[in-house]
Amino acid sequence: MVESWSFLDTVESNFRPLVVIELAKGTKEETIEWFTKRIVDKKANGGAQLLIKPLVMENGVENIYLVGASHLRLLLGAETVGLVKECSDNSMRTFTYSSRKTFKDFADDNHNFLTMAECQYIIKHELENLRAKNEKMIPGYPQAKLYPGKSIVRRLLTSGILVQIFPLHDREELKKLRQSWYGRVKVGYQPLDDIRCYFGETIALYFGFLEYFTFALIPMAVIGIPYYVFAWEDYDKYVMFATFNLLWSTVILEVWKRICAILTYHWGTLLMKRQFEEPRPGFHGVLGINPVTGREEPVYSSIKRQLRIYLVSLPFVCLCLYFSLYVMMIYFDLEQWALDYHKENESNFSSLMLYVPSIIYAVVIEIMNRIYRYAAEFLTSWENHRLESSYQNHLILKVLVFNFLNCFASLFYIAFVLFDMKLLRQSLATLLITSQILNQFAESLLPYWLQKRYNRRMRKRVCSQKTDMDLSLAEQVNMEKEMGTYLGTFDDYLELFLQFGYVSLFSCVYPLAAVFAVLNNVTEIYSDALKMCRVYKRPFAEPTANIGVWQLAFETMSVISVVTNCILIGMSPQVDALFPDSKMDLVLTVALVEHLLLAVKFIMAFVIPDKPRDIQMKLAKLEFESLEALKQQQMKLAAESLKE
Amino acid sequence: MVESWSFLDTVESNFRPLVVIELAKGTKEETIEWFTKRIVDKKANGGAQLLIKPLVMENGVENIYLVGASHLRLLLGAETVGLVKECSDNSMRTFTYSSRKTFKDFADDNHNFLTMAECQYIIKHELENLRAKNEKMIPGYPQAKLYPGKSIVRRLLTSGILVQIFPLHDREELKKLRQSWYGRVKVGYQPLDDIRCYFGETIALYFGFLEYFTFALIPMAVIGIPYYVFAWEDYDKYVMFATFNLLWSTVILEVWKRICAILTYHWGTLLMKRQFEEPRPGFHGVLGINPVTGREEPVYSSIKRQLRIYLVSLPFVCLCLYFSLYVMMIYFDLEQWALDYHKENESNFSSLMLYVPSIIYAVVIEIMNRIYRYAAEFLTSWENHRLESSYQNHLILKVLVFNFLNCFASLFYIAFVLFDMKLLRQSLATLLITSQILNQFAESLLPYWLQKRYNRRMRKRVCSQKTDMDLSLAEQVNMEKEMGTYLGTFDDYLELFLQFGYVSLFSCVYPLAAVFAVLNNVTEIYSDALKMCRVYKRPFAEPTANIGVWQLAFETMSVISVVTNCILIGMSPQVDALFPDSKMDLVLTVALVEHLLLAVKFIMAFVIPDKPRDIQMKLAKLEFESLEALKQQQMKLAAESLKE
Repeated sequence: MVESWSFLDTVESNFRPLVVIELAKGTKEETIEWFTKRIVDKKANGGAQLLIKPLVMENGVENIYLVGASHLRLLLGAETVGLVKECSDNSMRTFTYSSRKTFKDFADDNHNFLTMAECQYIIKHELENLRAKNEKMIPGYPQAKLYPGKSIVRRLLTSGILVQIFPLHDREELKKLRQSWYGRVKVGYQPLDDIRCYFGETIALYFGFLEYFTFALIPMAVIGIPYYVFAWEDYDKYVMFATFNLLWSTVILEVWKRICAILTYHWGTLLMKRQFEEPRPGFHGVLGINPVTGREEPVYSSIKRQLRIYLVSLPFVCLCLYFSLYVMMIYFDLEQWALDYHKENESNFSSLMLYVPSIIYAVVIEIMNRIYRYAAEFLTSWENHRLESSYQNHLILKVLVFNFLNCFASLFYIAFVLFDMKLLRQSLATLLITSQILNQFAESLLPYWLQKRYNRRMRKRVCSQKTDMDLSLAEQVNMEKEMGTYLGTFDDYLELFLQFGYVSLFSCVYPLAAVFAVLNNVTEIYSDALKMCRVYKRPFAEPTANIGVWQLAFETMSVISVVTNCILIGMSPQVDALFPDSKMDLVLTVALVEHLLLAVKFIMAFVIPDKPRDIQMKLAKLEFESLEALKQQQMKLAAESLKE
Repeated sequence: MVESWSFLDTVESNFRPLVVIELAKGTKEETIEWFTKRIVDKKANGGAQLLIKPLVMENGVENIYLVGASHLRLLLGAETVGLVKECSDNSMRTFTYSSRKTFKDFADDNHNFLTMAECQYIIKHELENLRAKNEKMIPGYPQAKLYPGKSIVRRLLTSGILVQIFPLHDREELKKLRQSWYGRVKVGYQPLDDIRCYFGETIALYFGFLEYFTFALIPMAVIGIPYYVFAWEDYDKYVMFATFNLLWSTVILEVWKRICAILTYHWGTLLMKRQFEEPRPGFHGVLGINPVTGREEPVYSSIKRQLRIYLVSLPFVCLCLYFSLYVMMIYFDLEQWALDYHKENESNFSSLMLYVPSIIYAVVIEIMNRIYRYAAEFLTSWENHRLESSYQNHLILKVLVFNFLNCFASLFYIAFVLFDMKLLRQSLATLLITSQILNQFAESLLPYWLQKRYNRRMRKRVCSQKTDMDLSLAEQVNMEKEMGTYLGTFDDYLELFLQFGYVSLFSCVYPLAAVFAVLNNVTEIYSDALKMCRVYKRPFAEPTANIGVWQLAFETMSVISVVTNCILIGMSPQVDALFPDSKMDLVLTVALVEHLLLAVKFIMAFVIPDKPRDIQMKLAKLEFESLEALKQQQMKLAAESLKE
């Protein structure tokens, strides 16, 4: 039943390889047979009804399999995962096989109706939903326990039999995408729709947000430049800048929600129904009955988890925060030392030395952030959350709190304890620029080096001058399986979040921050694009309707920035001079203005609709239609019942 | 087809009158015939398939009709409106006729499966959804235009042919409810489930909130009493009270959400799907195509509405606010005059006179609130909103802003401009107590007087000593149609909202406010119950899952109260004494504490889940089941498609 492929077969009629499964070397024969049988078995027998073929390597080892599916199977899978596609009348509807003819570009012989990323997402979904029936364990591996309903692929992954599953790149498509994305230096938008077709919605939305955020920063940067050029050190000009900044940051976050709704509506994910969330792969516990599903599955007591969170994770995070503050105090000692040195020696070298402590501190901050990140991941996974979403929320909370304090504590200390505006500006500039350079290095130079290494290795293997396009399928698979795995958009968003903090929290003392942010983001787009296309394995597409918890994080940051900017403005000598008689009046005025600004912010957030009017109308139309259809159905039933 | 009923027929087999339709006297015969035919006509012919019988009065005039429905028709209607009922396994599920056997207490001969309030709600829904087919106008009334899809009942109502539709009271049930609700003086909870069965969810939820809110105020009241008894005028004790108050008010609002979820889950409304919203009855415009439904219906340009809102309503509201502030300044003149008078005369009478301005002002506030309420209703209906929800939101916003300023502006002025804590306490007490007395008068004495008048009139008509229970159906209908119409829970919630303001905004200067609020609310429950049972027509049940915009209004009030209380505490001499050297430090400390409290509030609101864990589980279970069912259906389809 399972035919094998020879090393150089790249074309095979009726089988388009979509996903690669790599098993551990030396996996038992009976396990492989059982697993491949389950994959190709009929749906009715509990199989996935997909196609699978082994890829025979030069050395004869057979541990890599290619998975594909018939066109019909993919269409039915599209219905199962609830894909939303565009209809002939330009509306977006949930795809069903029975209504397939009403969809735009659908034809029984058009195999491009579903994008390759969608097909791969469907196959991943089908593989993950391949569940144990009566098997008590994985055949050949008695220690890998199974129970009815357990996802087979997840158990194979956790027990190390399955090394990895990844989707194949489409060399031709990728080349086209690269060309239009970053192939030539050009001014213009990114091909977001193409990115979405190739990499899926989560990644396309990240690039959409990055692009939007960069454009949104441009007005701030443009207004910030004259402050540098004309050396506007007057605080009244800073006040203007800060006020603009505050309102602007609220507006851009609200407008992003609308743009996000437009994008995801056209990608179909805005309308996609949420799937029922299965336990995450790492979750473990004793077998019990899940009260929601009524199925047997591992159960882990919520009290135990709470104990772990409050008795271990929380103290650990507090300890890390304390350590971060301790490092900060060392930085201030260094700063003092550098200042003393400069006073003693007064040379060019000594004035350069003034910047050294900040630079060292910025590097230390980056290193601490990265180490803490691993610790947070370890702890959160040890907390044993049942759902991926709960895991993600706890991880993001841990990381955000630490990173916020780690990056901004020194600035807060300088601004509101030392009251040293000059040092604040200098420190802010150094921290921002150093962290950007470090990140660019880690994201641009490192990928470039990896790229080089990868090219060299490729050449060595194939021993010829073949270009990418000429590679055989086996060669391609071999190359891709060695590439790094893209771990999601978390770090990319975190970087933007911290950048937003640098730009907005103390904007009224350093208007040039926005300029650096814009410059950084332009190169960031290119380096991230390079990373996605050349450095990492193709990631599975992940449908998403918004940027999730990051929207909340950015909004919280913009609320905090209202407070800090108001205080900074209140502390400025110019504003001070307006209230010569009474410091009291000054403080009260600042507090009043702050409360008014916060009120305006909340009212704006409330008043600006999250979705543009035409998207609202389209959603209302869909809802109306589904209610109408339900009513028609009930009417028919009622008419029949009443006839009796 | 339409049999008539003689005056004294009270029992009729197989027809249970549920809803009364009163047509205008002298309605044309052809109109009546057409309307009744549409009501009884088969669903397939576009009718409502209900039962209708005329009620022949003593004077032979036949303008009152009783509407009922067969048991089967009601069950099918329950499916149409999407009622959620309890199943035999104690879970809540959407009722469908085909799955009727799985529901608790269902039996084909059990006509009490649906409560009378539910039956009446179903009939109202069916009548309102009786739509014009090809009629261009109401037969006999060429000026009452119709177009396909227009609700006939709404057109009949707006053109005055239909005087009113109201549900009948159930004398026996009502008597039982009265007994258990307020029949004897007892300490205990209200029979919320019975109230819900009789009056529907919106009203039961109001009483649930009133009761909950009263219980929640008790701790505040208990802590407030010693301040009066021991004359604790120390501010440090006030500080304690205010801090407790702030945290408490956040907690009670969060806990209410959870209790509300528990109540509405068991009532089935938490799970009920939102129905598609039809245009509100008063909405008018030129005929056009609704882009959402694709149907012909009146269309009114959104720009015109915006112009009306911003060029007429907004200036009008501002004018009213200005007028309210103007009245406030007159009140302060009066207050000054009374103070001068007291200083000159120093008598018992003059010290009593000190309270007179506040009392007069409280009465004026109440009168202005009521007049403004009518103006706001008129304006909002003139703004011509298409949907009832949009109408309600604009009305509530207008009324809340004005009432807030009208009631609290003088207190803010006294506290933060005059800095007169003694006057603040006196003014707050007078305003609170006077407004409560006025409201109790309007809600308790007025109902009592109406009750008397109604008893007298009843006696006069029937000329006998019959009790309520012995009345014939015709007598009952005649009596009920003359009763007032209950206009919804808006005014009741508004009263509670203002009370919450009095209690929380300045709690640290007048801890006794909570005591008065509790006392008021206890009598409020009784007077509101009396009002519902004896004064007004029975209202149609309205399913609802929460208290809607009022939750937001109460939360906003509690945020504002954090700010006011922090400032009041900061202004106290005791706190002042803690910072002898620098006023500055005092203000900064107060600002810091305020921000911390606000942060704690928001974090608490975010962390406390809106639904209790077991309700979350039940909802998850339902969602899982519906997804499972969908998957099964797709699997079957897939298996069939793949066999081909």
